[in-house]
Amino acid sequence: MRVAVLGGDGFCGWPAALHLSANGHDVSIVDSLVRRRADEELGVQSLTPIASLADRVAAWQEVTGRQISTVEFDVAHDYDALVAFLDDTRPDAVVHFAEQRSAPYSMKTPWHKRYTVDNNLNATNNLLVALIELGLETHVIHLGSMGVYGYETVPVDLPEGYLTVSYPDRNGEMRSRDILYPTNPGSVYHMSKSLDQLLFQFYGRNDDMRITDLHQGIVWGTQTDETELDPRLINRFDYDGDYGTVLNRFIIEAAIGYPLTVHGTGGQTRAFINIRDTVKCIRIAVESGDQVTGRVRVMNQMTETHRVSELAELVADTLGAEINMVANPRQEADANELVVRNDHLLGLGLDPITLDSGLLVTEADLARKYGDRIDQSRIPAKSYWNSNRRSAVEGSSD
Amino acid sequence: MRVAVLGGDGFCGWPAALHLSANGHDVSIVDSLVRRRADEELGVQSLTPIASLADRVAAWQEVTGRQISTVEFDVAHDYDALVAFLDDTRPDAVVHFAEQRSAPYSMKTPWHKRYTVDNNLNATNNLLVALIELGLETHVIHLGSMGVYGYETVPVDLPEGYLTVSYPDRNGEMRSRDILYPTNPGSVYHMSKSLDQLLFQFYGRNDDMRITDLHQGIVWGTQTDETELDPRLINRFDYDGDYGTVLNRFIIEAAIGYPLTVHGTGGQTRAFINIRDTVKCIRIAVESGDQVTGRVRVMNQMTETHRVSELAELVADTLGAEINMVANPRQEADANELVVRNDHLLGLGLDPITLDSGLLVTEADLARKYGDRIDQSRIPAKSYWNSNRRSAVEGSSD
Repeated sequence: MRVAVLGGDGFCGWPAALHLSANGHDVSIVDSLVRRRADEELGVQSLTPIASLADRVAAWQEVTGRQISTVEFDVAHDYDALVAFLDDTRPDAVVHFAEQRSAPYSMKTPWHKRYTVDNNLNATNNLLVALIELGLETHVIHLGSMGVYGYETVPVDLPEGYLTVSYPDRNGEMRSRDILYPTNPGSVYHMSKSLDQLLFQFYGRNDDMRITDLHQGIVWGTQTDETELDPRLINRFDYDGDYGTVLNRFIIEAAIGYPLTVHGTGGQTRAFINIRDTVKCIRIAVESGDQVTGRVRVMNQMTETHRVSELAELVADTLGAEINMVANPRQEADANELVVRNDHLLGLGLDPITLDSGLLVTEADLARKYGDRIDQSRIPAKSYWNSNRRSAVEGSSD
Repeated sequence: MRVAVLGGDGFCGWPAALHLSANGHDVSIVDSLVRRRADEELGVQSLTPIASLADRVAAWQEVTGRQISTVEFDVAHDYDALVAFLDDTRPDAVVHFAEQRSAPYSMKTPWHKRYTVDNNLNATNNLLVALIELGLETHVIHLGSMGVYGYETVPVDLPEGYLTVSYPDRNGEMRSRDILYPTNPGSVYHMSKSLDQLLFQFYGRNDDMRITDLHQGIVWGTQTDETELDPRLINRFDYDGDYGTVLNRFIIEAAIGYPLTVHGTGGQTRAFINIRDTVKCIRIAVESGDQVTGRVRVMNQMTETHRVSELAELVADTLGAEINMVANPRQEADANELVVRNDHLLGLGLDPITLDSGLLVTEADLARKYGDRIDQSRIPAKSYWNSNRRSAVEGSSD
């Protein structure tokens, strides 16, 4: 299939593009390279030394003989380039990673809040409007987030996108209806994914589009079978307080002897997925596009849930580390329970890689290998959700 | 109270600003004047000759001795100007009309879809982010739309924003929960109001903001007690296929002997409110801001519901007119039922003006007075919701 990967230079986009290419798909990457500029803005670099996009695809061709084309433009702000690209490539599927993907980054300053909403919404809207304008029947695969469901404890196993609810009609008889699961995002970033959901709901119905929304858990790990083939294919590894995800941060912290930074009590339960499973899920979503005909298909792209404090203990036990409880910069519940259904992807053949697979140690080896690239001053999370959280953290030791 | 009216030069914004000023509030208007430019873009003009914003406020001061300040900037795209304005005026309440407000305009072309999402979302996001940045406790009053509820027939009287639903927990016990009424917008414009709802939900909770969202029905009428005081204060009257609202269009059509343009069977039921009640509701919302402390207050700002075909018959009977059923350019149900609760505003003192109040005839007199300003070629609605609707309409006589 012809597959366009928007945001194909990023942490999930790059290994997903390689995995699709390795499996025989004809892949084009679109990227504005904004994620690399965010590193410059934040004064940080990927733990792993990543090659330029041009060098990456050249290496991929050298190693595998497979070609990936690349185009550089901003999906959110260069609509004409997007239309020209889609008209030219007429993809069977578009995988849409072209969104700002960090919750702390989205909460840093007024500018970051505004950037995240503007970028993420316009990117998604532009994509949908362009496909409608061109009359293409392209399957759209979007990276959503588990965060759209929210992280309050709820008495149900989180379903995949929809919830059947009942309520009394005007005569007091109970009626039942399937609705999009009531959204409860905890950051501007997660809110932007909730907004995306409404765009998919509307255009899907109004213009009879085929759309899959993947509500992904927190990704951990770095390398995949494809990125391991050559050092120039290496994937990025973010450890900083903005883009670093919790488990990857614990791993590098342990690797360099920095106490594990647990926010609050660590009672937060979150859903996780290894990057190797992320790329498989994307391929599965692409290859099962024929199944998407009616309403938006929502699949939960995660494989296990863990309490943050238990993760910290696991990492401390496996790799050896101290644990440091720090005041939580986020406005969120101190603790929550979370059970998530992921029947869709399991039914389509996903065979989950779990935390006990030994990959933790592999990751720690990678972290140690590049440990001299770490700037420890970039480890603490310094993006505050609101003025109360700022006071709480700045008034405490870190 | 100090009240800022964003979009205070528009159809609802201008008479609302005057009504607030007449009732002793200290009013500032912000407007980019984009609505006047849209008239130029569409090659149409308000039925009523409207003065420039500068002449309007000068006339208001001359007639009443009350001052309204004005500032011209784009709330969606000039964040620095917005922060400076809010920091300078430190309003007790902001009434936010600064959104593209036409469903057909939002569906005309790819550009119009993109403009509506970009403009409406960034305007709302900028406002909320700016108030948070400045630490102001300003009450935000936003013009939403009945269209966020959708126009499918549902078995309940539409509640005000929230619906209590139940669902079985993982042990099979029924649980109950209040949720935002599941949104079902029928156009990009209405979708943008659904997106706004999620912004209010998120920032309201994260930053403890006071927010009122007014889900307004279709406005009819033109003048208010305040705009009638002087010809230079006259409100705009849109009759064109994009910005004209259904009842106002029927009135001018009847006034000039043009057959009433009923879309489809006219079986659509919609909620209505007279512009005189709109401005009262805005004032009531502003003056009851102290009641808003917790979750977003949602009030349905409408006074009656009618089936479009019945409205056409009423206008035809009252004013004399033919009725012309034309193929519907909109993707919507041919017919629906609609019952709406508006207890909030009634409880706060709204005394509804209904269609049988005689104002129809007053409106028709106004339409006849300015009838020579009408360009009949601008009456048909030529914005198609999707390719199927385009084919259906363009393949039929209009």
